[in-house]
Amino acid sequence: MANENPDEIKGLNISKDITIGEFLKKIRHTGFQATNLGKAVEIIDKMKLDNATIFLSFTSNMASSGLRDVFAYLVKNKLVDVIITSVGSVEEDLIKSKMPFLLGSFDMDDVELHKKGINRIGNILVPNNRYGHLEKVLQPFFKKMHEKQKRSGKMISPSELIAELGTLAGEDSFIYWAAKNEIPVFCPAITDGAFGLQTFFYKQDHKDFGIDATADMQRLAEIVLQSKRTGAIILGGGVAKHHTIGVNILRDGLDYAVYVTTAGEGDGSVAGARPKEAKSWSKLKEDANSVCVEGDATIIFSLLAFAMKGGK
Amino acid sequence: MANENPDEIKGLNISKDITIGEFLKKIRHTGFQATNLGKAVEIIDKMKLDNATIFLSFTSNMASSGLRDVFAYLVKNKLVDVIITSVGSVEEDLIKSKMPFLLGSFDMDDVELHKKGINRIGNILVPNNRYGHLEKVLQPFFKKMHEKQKRSGKMISPSELIAELGTLAGEDSFIYWAAKNEIPVFCPAITDGAFGLQTFFYKQDHKDFGIDATADMQRLAEIVLQSKRTGAIILGGGVAKHHTIGVNILRDGLDYAVYVTTAGEGDGSVAGARPKEAKSWSKLKEDANSVCVEGDATIIFSLLAFAMKGGK
Amino acid sequence: MANENPDEIKGLNISKDITIGEFLKKIRHTGFQATNLGKAVEIIDKMKLDNATIFLSFTSNMASSGLRDVFAYLVKNKLVDVIITSVGSVEEDLIKSKMPFLLGSFDMDDVELHKKGINRIGNILVPNNRYGHLEKVLQPFFKKMHEKQKRSGKMISPSELIAELGTLAGEDSFIYWAAKNEIPVFCPAITDGAFGLQTFFYKQDHKDFGIDATADMQRLAEIVLQSKRTGAIILGGGVAKHHTIGVNILRDGLDYAVYVTTAGEGDGSVAGARPKEAKSWSKLKEDANSVCVEGDATIIFSLLAFAMKGGK
Amino acid sequence: MANENPDEIKGLNISKDITIGEFLKKIRHTGFQATNLGKAVEIIDKMKLDNATIFLSFTSNMASSGLRDVFAYLVKNKLVDVIITSVGSVEEDLIKSKMPFLLGSFDMDDVELHKKGINRIGNILVPNNRYGHLEKVLQPFFKKMHEKQKRSGKMISPSELIAELGTLAGEDSFIYWAAKNEIPVFCPAITDGAFGLQTFFYKQDHKDFGIDATADMQRLAEIVLQSKRTGAIILGGGVAKHHTIGVNILRDGLDYAVYVTTAGEGDGSVAGARPKEAKSWSKLKEDANSVCVEGDATIIFSLLAFAMKGGK
Repeated sequence: MANENPDEIKGLNISKDITIGEFLKKIRHTGFQATNLGKAVEIIDKMKLDNATIFLSFTSNMASSGLRDVFAYLVKNKLVDVIITSVGSVEEDLIKSKMPFLLGSFDMDDVELHKKGINRIGNILVPNNRYGHLEKVLQPFFKKMHEKQKRSGKMISPSELIAELGTLAGEDSFIYWAAKNEIPVFCPAITDGAFGLQTFFYKQDHKDFGIDATADMQRLAEIVLQSKRTGAIILGGGVAKHHTIGVNILRDGLDYAVYVTTAGEGDGSVAGARPKEAKSWSKLKEDANSVCVEGDATIIFSLLAFAMKGGK
Repeated sequence: MANENPDEIKGLNISKDITIGEFLKKIRHTGFQATNLGKAVEIIDKMKLDNATIFLSFTSNMASSGLRDVFAYLVKNKLVDVIITSVGSVEEDLIKSKMPFLLGSFDMDDVELHKKGINRIGNILVPNNRYGHLEKVLQPFFKKMHEKQKRSGKMISPSELIAELGTLAGEDSFIYWAAKNEIPVFCPAITDGAFGLQTFFYKQDHKDFGIDATADMQRLAEIVLQSKRTGAIILGGGVAKHHTIGVNILRDGLDYAVYVTTAGEGDGSVAGARPKEAKSWSKLKEDANSVCVEGDATIIFSLLAFAMKGGK
Repeated sequence: MANENPDEIKGLNISKDITIGEFLKKIRHTGFQATNLGKAVEIIDKMKLDNATIFLSFTSNMASSGLRDVFAYLVKNKLVDVIITSVGSVEEDLIKSKMPFLLGSFDMDDVELHKKGINRIGNILVPNNRYGHLEKVLQPFFKKMHEKQKRSGKMISPSELIAELGTLAGEDSFIYWAAKNEIPVFCPAITDGAFGLQTFFYKQDHKDFGIDATADMQRLAEIVLQSKRTGAIILGGGVAKHHTIGVNILRDGLDYAVYVTTAGEGDGSVAGARPKEAKSWSKLKEDANSVCVEGDATIIFSLLAFAMKGGK
Repeated sequence: MANENPDEIKGLNISKDITIGEFLKKIRHTGFQATNLGKAVEIIDKMKLDNATIFLSFTSNMASSGLRDVFAYLVKNKLVDVIITSVGSVEEDLIKSKMPFLLGSFDMDDVELHKKGINRIGNILVPNNRYGHLEKVLQPFFKKMHEKQKRSGKMISPSELIAELGTLAGEDSFIYWAAKNEIPVFCPAITDGAFGLQTFFYKQDHKDFGIDATADMQRLAEIVLQSKRTGAIILGGGVAKHHTIGVNILRDGLDYAVYVTTAGEGDGSVAGARPKEAKSWSKLKEDANSVCVEGDATIIFSLLAFAMKGGK
């Protein structure tokens, strides 16, 4: 049977070794989520060709995983233009540039881990000293930001804060390269997580220190409004996803969207919402190119990253 | 076969009609998630008996659904002590006290909905005029908050803002009763959603208006630190869940936790993380009573709400 | 806000205690899967009013759970007309009429359970002696069936075999009542599971004993062809679901279908396929009343069972 | 940061193009399901090195997808020893060797497809003439099998039937190569699906034709009992999975198991059951090497197939 008909279901020829790039070109015809993976590659190609402003949105567990290193590569090489994420991503990216996270397993005994001072995220382990290190960086950092606030007379925005923090991170981190390459990292819930607890500790003695949550909307809105085209790669759900698609209402919707999620749409969650729902909201254009790939981003985005960098 | 052995699998006797309360008492022995539902009831009973400070955490799609009316009942009757949620919940609760959301279906044509000016959340429809109404409330409200900021010399916190907004909402809304009953509503991503876009519009002409994201940490931390016991009912994931369990690190963890989620734990997401993972982090005590019920909260929490109010 | 508009999203009024019947009548307006649960109730009411032949299809884990007792009630009271299931259901129903299954937990140590001779199905435990009992029943039973085969000169069909076995089961089992009430139990994979292994043992010394897999198609087809209307309640997926919808092709499709599943449709699995897909196949009529409720059947069907028996 | 520590979380280096083989070697350190994918590769390597008898189990939607071509390659090259699947796989493999399946989309209008005579499996389309072709092959084939039955005086077993059918299939099909290479294809529910309906039609005029469901247990049991080691690659759930692990009880369990599934374990389904549960049942050895990769097999197994063939 011929392989060449674009409308036929056809699996991969596995008789010879192929590159990821070749895999991604052929996988569309296997059906089901393989088709969606193949479509995602096509949409990424189009958004690059079209010089769209590319938003990369991800939840913090993605940064807990090795995808953080992939994000750093993409930001270093200016393959994305805007990042929208949870504050955990920023914390963990910073920590990892000093101390690695460790590989564990999903079914470890959490009470025993707790006794040993090891925190678990799925099958990833984060010993407490990582957070000790974070505290040691953040407290003097907040002091510096506080002084900046006092000098300027206005509270810092989350994206400025992250850019400043990026200069303290190692060269393997995405916030370092985001700062270097002036790629904004937006974080609509900056006081969640360890970061939030650290602001609480800092404020014990510095009541007037603050972060203006509203201060980033102007900057983010301008990017959206000044872009000729926008596209988004959205890994997971939560506030990172919602913020990314929500702000694109200002330009009547994204032109391109690739969602990667493990969530279904039956519970009305943002994580599970498919691109088509976003069209009703003007978050996606009526004729936008879009796809949702169902699967864990640690696998799916490790593949798609090669499409983003134009791998052969 | 006798029904009375606590260790035996035994289904419901459906020969006579029973109340939800009776259903919840018996369902534990059916196995699988029915067991977890039954355990959730037992844990809710315990946290109430123990006078734990009860955190209710939910994502905004829960407020899009009819659960919003259940939340309002719980807050009105002081059956919960703290709410942590996404800003969409606050927006939608306010809107609904004026104009209802409508029942649609999951497979509606979103391009057609868009042409008609109707936004879709799963099978729930929100015509654009709901957001027109929101804008009409929020712009003068921000002006009022801005004046308050100027008088006091400091930016408002998200929870204060929501309490003020609650006084403008109808009596069927949870923010109204939260304001009335001084039950704080925390919202760690206050500038997400329509709310965030409205702050952007307001700031066009009022550059100095702001919301201090860090301002709530003290208030939230104090609740956690001053409680003899804490328990949480957590519907869905996202920043609402993460913030709820995260702040309880300050007291070495929640004493009680009931999670309701549709997410699995295989992708390391916060939505899918089970209570045991939280123990490694000191977000849950080592010996905490906890359970995760897998299922859509519109069904699961509609049942559990009867346990919360002590239904027979 | 009024509750009465059928198009509005409205949660339950939890201020007073209600029965399951009342819950099911109101739950539709809560949105998301609650809506689907409410629709399922309406469809069940219609298929009963319409005197449709009702197929009940379930996977064997449902029989492992307490739902087995609910099934027995429904069959005893002739509230279903045909059962299509996996052979595990038949085995476990038989075992349970003698020895109960036990409540365990999902995270038990399986190596330790193995050492103790306890088998696990999710959070349900089945000590090895249950299978010892099954063997003691099945070996003489096969001998009896073998003799019947020799007398009649033809191999027995799966449904006849199960009806014969039903006469050996206790009065709390569905196969007992199915035999009594002449409700056929079809099992398209009769040699799977312990049952299959027992046929292997029996055939060591009785090579000519057999079960004609094709022998049930006539009986099943006639039910389908002679029914004025057909409806199906389908819990889970697998061969039980596929067989139920597949045979209805003979009459150009079911008139009514209620699916309950935890599976999504993204992988093309039968478990995840929604009713609409069945329409393309003539497995469901183009204008069939149908719904899929996403959730664990131990909760969802424990509720729906009250609709099936006409609970108030 | 060094990449070489086996215990550290580390993402892929995407700066250069790599082969699938290289991808699979590195992916383990990314965390979450990427880790499980990497483990699956290691286990496949081990079962091959150990000369284990390799069972490949899959549901019929896998054969609907392009994975069917991958299966054919593996069987042709004797990279698997036993196949256990649903009858739909056999039907579709046969059809595809004559007429391809087509690529559609998940959200097509099924009523319209029905009017056009096109059947849908997820995003895969099967026009009715494919089943017309199947009928034209099966009716004379059953006649031939019937004659064989009359000659031998005994009913054919499912695996013999499939081997005979394989000789009629094209060289791109797995049943062709299974017949050629004497790799048995077991099908515990041979009368499900179109195949079952075709036996019904055939039996209208040939009442004594039959298929002995019990006839394969001896053959399957012997393979299990005579193998020094057994390993299984199990895609999806259902009777194919259950039969594969169930029969390995006869040798106190598989030595190696790789599961690929989209199902969770919370509902006690066979699709969602993890390898550890199988240990309690002696379906997997206590010290077996095993892993479950969560994800759609069209992507996951398209990758793993390269590990099976020893891709670099």
